[in-house]
Amino acid sequence: MGNISHHLILAISKTDDVVVMQRIDSRMDSLEETQNPSSREHGDQKCEKPDIYILAVSDDAIVAVSKKLRKTKSLVVHTSGSVSIHALPEKIRRGVFYPLQTFSKKQKVDFNHLPICIEAENKGDLEMLRNLANSLSKVVHEIASDKRMYLHLAAVFANNFTNHLYHIAEEICASQNLPFSLLRPLIFETANKIESVSPGEAQTGPARRDDKETIKKHLATLTTEKQKEIYTLLSHSIQEAYGEEL
Amino acid sequence: MGNISHHLILAISKTDDVVVMQRIDSRMDSLEETQNPSSREHGDQKCEKPDIYILAVSDDAIVAVSKKLRKTKSLVVHTSGSVSIHALPEKIRRGVFYPLQTFSKKQKVDFNHLPICIEAENKGDLEMLRNLANSLSKVVHEIASDKRMYLHLAAVFANNFTNHLYHIAEEICASQNLPFSLLRPLIFETANKIESVSPGEAQTGPARRDDKETIKKHLATLTTEKQKEIYTLLSHSIQEAYGEEL
Repeated sequence: MGNISHHLILAISKTDDVVVMQRIDSRMDSLEETQNPSSREHGDQKCEKPDIYILAVSDDAIVAVSKKLRKTKSLVVHTSGSVSIHALPEKIRRGVFYPLQTFSKKQKVDFNHLPICIEAENKGDLEMLRNLANSLSKVVHEIASDKRMYLHLAAVFANNFTNHLYHIAEEICASQNLPFSLLRPLIFETANKIESVSPGEAQTGPARRDDKETIKKHLATLTTEKQKEIYTLLSHSIQEAYGEEL
Repeated sequence: MGNISHHLILAISKTDDVVVMQRIDSRMDSLEETQNPSSREHGDQKCEKPDIYILAVSDDAIVAVSKKLRKTKSLVVHTSGSVSIHALPEKIRRGVFYPLQTFSKKQKVDFNHLPICIEAENKGDLEMLRNLANSLSKVVHEIASDKRMYLHLAAVFANNFTNHLYHIAEEICASQNLPFSLLRPLIFETANKIESVSPGEAQTGPARRDDKETIKKHLATLTTEKQKEIYTLLSHSIQEAYGEEL
């Protein structure tokens, strides 16, 4: 089971409104009941016609899985940030239910303030998605496919690329037997700061100060070409962004 | 007054051990008492010979300011991550007191779990720095100048470059009139996750999955050359790091 479906099922099973839920794996040839207590109460009742099918599958499985639902009268939604609503079969009721968060099985997710982006092609379906989203989170936005793609792209910078920078920092620490945990308060504060200051204003560091000596020293210290390239490019980008102020 | 000195003075003024403190500006031609209540009690007593001079000045001012202290018998420390202890005058008692955090005046700093890296050339001075550091934080490490430089370099990736990625994400959102606040829970969780999972393991996203279609779509969506370069380089770097697993 994927990470999103794991957390979605956990969250939805806590709501009062959704009575019966079943998990269908992406091959669609097995049915399995979830841990949802309400579904146990209704254990005998086969959920042949759910209100909503939520396809919490990987991006490249959406087309194949949704094809198997091309005759359903239920609403079918996927949970991807980067896939258009039009990837779903044309003649069904279709929508998107995109929780903007990174999910891993180990980590608990607080859905309460997690933005959920919804999209549907008619008012009734949108309303149904809004009700479901509101039962999970206080932050629900209607966002069309073309805008959602930008949001997903921004999320790649803010999450995937950021995590890779943490990884590089971890490697630099490891090369000197320095505990990576020393950086955790800094990482936490960097993320925390933008609650009150915009990242544009919060920028600090050698590139922001145009401190050429430190930049030179850092480049001489880095050991891999890739790290040097990343250091150079990001420093240039910062210098370019703030250049006129210097 | 710089950001580090502002927060250091706030933190130190709350300890019981440090009795008198004065702030000397980087031109060294003015003396000004701080808000420290203990210093007010001892208001008449001129602090001519402090135990420690803490030069919480910018990196490029360290040499010039410390030169003015070349005759002192007190311990002189700077607070920089990237400047060697040897930048201080050779014949004085010298050291380093480096709090590994990003400081801005607006944001309160919790010193309690903030790593403080100390360095000195003799045991007595190191002990004095350790006592001062312990009175502020539970996380005190002795780290020599050459290793501290690596730590500072790692911090540039984890803090300065990460913040720049937030800034790019903010720009992408702004280009579509999407509120940047939608990304905050994601940013917070990305930082939070590495409390329990190493960034190497936590990596997700199109580059990690080698999802060429999404990468292509993202590159076509980005509007500035710099953003495209950064997207491409970081994606390559992720693909390289996990390439063998794919």
